[in-house]
Amino acid sequence: MEPGEVLTKRADAVTNRARIIEVALSVFAECGLELEMNVIAARAHLGVGTLYRHFANREGLLRAIVQRAVDDALTQMRSAASASDDPVVSLQALVSAGLHTQQQYRPLFAVMRDPRLAKLLDSPYAQSIRTQFRKTVRELIDHGIEVGVFRNDLDAEMAAVTIMGSFTSAIDLLGTSYSLDELAQRLSHFLLTMFTGKTEK
Amino acid sequence: MEPGEVLTKRADAVTNRARIIEVALSVFAECGLELEMNVIAARAHLGVGTLYRHFANREGLLRAIVQRAVDDALTQMRSAASASDDPVVSLQALVSAGLHTQQQYRPLFAVMRDPRLAKLLDSPYAQSIRTQFRKTVRELIDHGIEVGVFRNDLDAEMAAVTIMGSFTSAIDLLGTSYSLDELAQRLSHFLLTMFTGKTEK
Repeated sequence: MEPGEVLTKRADAVTNRARIIEVALSVFAECGLELEMNVIAARAHLGVGTLYRHFANREGLLRAIVQRAVDDALTQMRSAASASDDPVVSLQALVSAGLHTQQQYRPLFAVMRDPRLAKLLDSPYAQSIRTQFRKTVRELIDHGIEVGVFRNDLDAEMAAVTIMGSFTSAIDLLGTSYSLDELAQRLSHFLLTMFTGKTEK
Repeated sequence: MEPGEVLTKRADAVTNRARIIEVALSVFAECGLELEMNVIAARAHLGVGTLYRHFANREGLLRAIVQRAVDDALTQMRSAASASDDPVVSLQALVSAGLHTQQQYRPLFAVMRDPRLAKLLDSPYAQSIRTQFRKTVRELIDHGIEVGVFRNDLDAEMAAVTIMGSFTSAIDLLGTSYSLDELAQRLSHFLLTMFTGKTEK
């Protein structure tokens, strides 16, 4: 094989892997953990053999899509959290990113607590993901307190936990009544009213 | 059959049904949606035939355990929310009940957003559950505002959504660092600080 061919083969492999993960995410949204390897191969326009060269089994593929979704969500949240030096602007960006990624990966995040999926993800990995999300939000709150924009009696850890939880529940409980952008606006306004401690009587 | 025998049979049937649901809940906690009818029959010390007389299939049984868990959680939350006329006391009781029921039914609530389970629960039922939980928390917040204990600029709907979300995320993100009672105390304190709007400088 010529060096050029090797490079092309590698590039194909990278493209195929990315396409498999994209397709698997959308099949997952329909079928959940029952997603089938041959359905994914067919939708990705690849042979089953090629699919199995990338992922030895369904478990490997599931781990890959979870990791992909988590990485993407974390990147979006981090970039939002550091959007501005102004904690008010950053919090608004974070809430918007949190709601949008929650909506985007909803079926996947929903089953991350499923006993079977929990077995697939080793516990240190799951724990480290949770810590990273919490840390991202926590640092934003700490910064807001430091610069005197947020109340100094704020329990930053509980604030971070509450913000993270509000993304899922806002979509679950009000997702059919409001658009994502309306939800983002109301949720940020609510949180900012609480955190800045201003009472508008 | 004598009338007495009929009554005994009915009583047995009620007991069996209750026992099946109890056993199914614990099998679910281990196996998730893959729970198997014959495993449940064996653990409930019942013949498979008796199990199928109560539940025609796994889907019927899954619906029954979801309904049972939701009813129980809702009853506990309602009773906590109306624990006292003092909204501070009620909110503390609600947070404690919320965290405890979330912990108790965690594997089940975790997969309620699984695409396959979502298909089993008809959407008006799922919607009505969500509305009832939200309403329970919302009424407590509204009452707190009315009696002047909570800030009058509080968005009661977003407050309810945020409280509901905080139960899951507190256990997910901090459940290994604190006991449930410690979490309940910190979360109530945090929420009350926000809602009463007192700044302790």
